[in-house]
Amino acid sequence: MITVGFGAAVAAGTGLLSLPWATASDEPASLVDALFTATSAVCVTGLATVDTGTHWSPFGQAVILLLIQAGGLGIMTLATMLTLLLSRRLGLRARFLAQAETKSLSLHDVRGLVRRIVLFSLGTEALVAAVLTIRLITGYGLAPADALYSGVFHAISAFNNAGFSLHADGLVRYAGDAWICLTVAAAVIVGGLGFPVVFELARGWRRPGRWSVMTRITVTLTAVLLAAGTAVFTAAEWTNARTLGALAPGDRLLAGFFASAMARTAGFNSVDIGALRPESLLATDVLMFIGGGSAGTAGGIKVTTFGVLAFMLWSEIRGRAHVNAGRRRIPATNQRQALAIVLLSVGTVIAATFTLLAVTTHALDAVLFETISAFATVGLSTGITADLPAQAQLLLVALMFAGRIGPLTLASALALRDRDQRYELPEERTIVG
Amino acid sequence: MITVGFGAAVAAGTGLLSLPWATASDEPASLVDALFTATSAVCVTGLATVDTGTHWSPFGQAVILLLIQAGGLGIMTLATMLTLLLSRRLGLRARFLAQAETKSLSLHDVRGLVRRIVLFSLGTEALVAAVLTIRLITGYGLAPADALYSGVFHAISAFNNAGFSLHADGLVRYAGDAWICLTVAAAVIVGGLGFPVVFELARGWRRPGRWSVMTRITVTLTAVLLAAGTAVFTAAEWTNARTLGALAPGDRLLAGFFASAMARTAGFNSVDIGALRPESLLATDVLMFIGGGSAGTAGGIKVTTFGVLAFMLWSEIRGRAHVNAGRRRIPATNQRQALAIVLLSVGTVIAATFTLLAVTTHALDAVLFETISAFATVGLSTGITADLPAQAQLLLVALMFAGRIGPLTLASALALRDRDQRYELPEERTIVG
Ligand SMILES: [K+]
Ligand SMILES: [K+]
Repeated sequence: MITVGFGAAVAAGTGLLSLPWATASDEPASLVDALFTATSAVCVTGLATVDTGTHWSPFGQAVILLLIQAGGLGIMTLATMLTLLLSRRLGLRARFLAQAETKSLSLHDVRGLVRRIVLFSLGTEALVAAVLTIRLITGYGLAPADALYSGVFHAISAFNNAGFSLHADGLVRYAGDAWICLTVAAAVIVGGLGFPVVFELARGWRRPGRWSVMTRITVTLTAVLLAAGTAVFTAAEWTNARTLGALAPGDRLLAGFFASAMARTAGFNSVDIGALRPESLLATDVLMFIGGGSAGTAGGIKVTTFGVLAFMLWSEIRGRAHVNAGRRRIPATNQRQALAIVLLSVGTVIAATFTLLAVTTHALDAVLFETISAFATVGLSTGITADLPAQAQLLLVALMFAGRIGPLTLASALALRDRDQRYELPEERTIVG
Repeated sequence: MITVGFGAAVAAGTGLLSLPWATASDEPASLVDALFTATSAVCVTGLATVDTGTHWSPFGQAVILLLIQAGGLGIMTLATMLTLLLSRRLGLRARFLAQAETKSLSLHDVRGLVRRIVLFSLGTEALVAAVLTIRLITGYGLAPADALYSGVFHAISAFNNAGFSLHADGLVRYAGDAWICLTVAAAVIVGGLGFPVVFELARGWRRPGRWSVMTRITVTLTAVLLAAGTAVFTAAEWTNARTLGALAPGDRLLAGFFASAMARTAGFNSVDIGALRPESLLATDVLMFIGGGSAGTAGGIKVTTFGVLAFMLWSEIRGRAHVNAGRRRIPATNQRQALAIVLLSVGTVIAATFTLLAVTTHALDAVLFETISAFATVGLSTGITADLPAQAQLLLVALMFAGRIGPLTLASALALRDRDQRYELPEERTIVG
């Protein structure tokens, strides 16, 4: 069902982007470019074979924006519904819905849920667009219409973790602008937390002790990964004259934080990714692969999956018989779901990297980066996307699609199935993938 | 205990190799070279900062050979004893020992075990040395003394999966010689299966149905990985004029098989590793990381660990409540041990790769390859080892040491601890790491 929906959106987007008036020039876009861009937009990835700002007409850009919005809302709605279906034991269900005892979602529930998600999305996007527009007018002297267009485009792109930018070099021109960078980063982080977590935070942010395991893992790991990513990235690139070294010391920290936040998994860049040192690329690979929160607009294996694995490792090292997260035990089936998602993701990334290496002449650094960026729907690129042969671009299309819906469908298929468990202790299930 | 023993062997080896008469020239070896070579030999890795054949005197080469033999016998004995200590449920214990009911190993048991392992090692090495010596005399016209020296050296190096060669380019000169390549490959594979598996095979190779889980996983995965590695490697390099492309078509298959066998984890090479295509390097990375059998001379996370993870994934995909391997259930603690070893290994490799990238100017291809080669005690190299700065070489020393004794001590620490389990079904434990 999910696959069909996303496939239809990609097909419709490809059709619209193939129209002659979708491009800025007289030539219509090639089928591969249209397919690649449509997939990248629906899967909120942000990789691009052509420059978004110059290749597409305003009509084409509007189509891209619509696809991003549809893809972002679609994944958030579907993933949140899945979370609710699984949440009889998650403790979230009662907080979302009036009838907490029924076992399936009624049409009424779904309608209310979709309304909430749409309101949340559009509201946040409007706020972000407003801040960006004002800043572009006051700080950069743009005409109000241009500023509004750019503000709306980047707000939608940021909240949905899409990473599409109207500028060929991303947000490099705003690298030292804290207003823009921090606003975009905030939109990305909120979108990437996932709706169930945001909803629970909105209701009970003052009582962390009562958060669900999912929320606790997501919030903790988001903070830890942001801080660690900022530290590693800033330290590794501090003296690189082609990236952070060109900025004032204070701006280097801002750009390091921005890079850390974007790696999971928005895909905007305020420094030239192609000029990064290989150790920064590797660190970004790790962050991209982990990704953001479940049931949000982020990609990757998700921090929840990573968190379950970390708890498993910690329990084993401490010699505990069960895997506990706080005062809850993570069920064995839940652990194996996390493991399955990670193993299949690692396998997919390695196989795709191997294939891309075989059909191109690029080195491992760039190819691994591109593969993880596509699979985790990040959209950062060292710059090789446009030059890849068509079959390599089609492989990236498949990777983006698999990376967007794969973990979700896999997690739901695995999680909706096991129903006959017997529990000895109070348990709590967290969504992985 | 294990750490102290290996540390003492490395220290003694470093001392001996620092002696003036250990080198072929008048200059004594530098401390880093001596330490690196001693660690590489004791950990049966085969990475070298200096050319084994020309830098060291016959005395130095004898020291290296002694260290390899001590390291190989040491790891095999310790790992086999660990297997026995854990084998109350493994089913192997009764096949090794007379008193199957006691819970600890008596001095008598240990003595018998060590004798068997030494006999097995020296017997196999003598056989391999004989074949190699005869072939070097008849096929290459070497003087008997030279042929014997080379035969013994490479036999010990091969059986212990050490990968040290007297030639700077490894075994490239014998790439088309089936006698030498297949003999070396056989020695490597037998040494890499691990003593418990070899012992069980020797007793009951006609009744695969009664093999332990450990033996079944090891034999199956060894065959699968050898075949898959040969296919991938041969296909990827078939047209590369600097590697397989230079050989006759039949010899290409031989060299592909040889490369596949050596990647896990002997470290001999019959083609120039530095000339491999990046996709072959990546495939080799995967094979090296997986490594050989538990309780043998091979390194890596071990095929048993990989097998347990594969069974976990398969069970989850099939929706089974328990993880079954054949007609045995793999206990949950055993599953978590495998996971812990893999996660810590992946973390170590990524952290070391990041550090090496930061302190050198090499690309990810070469650095990742070198890191995994050191950690999995493989010893293949794209050729950067000798040129690395001293602190990078010391990091490789630490990696070799950690990779050699880390998984074993970790597996034993984790496995010897959980004693209070209650089992519902007949279970069987397999050693991981
Ligand atoms: K993205
Ligand atoms: K080796």
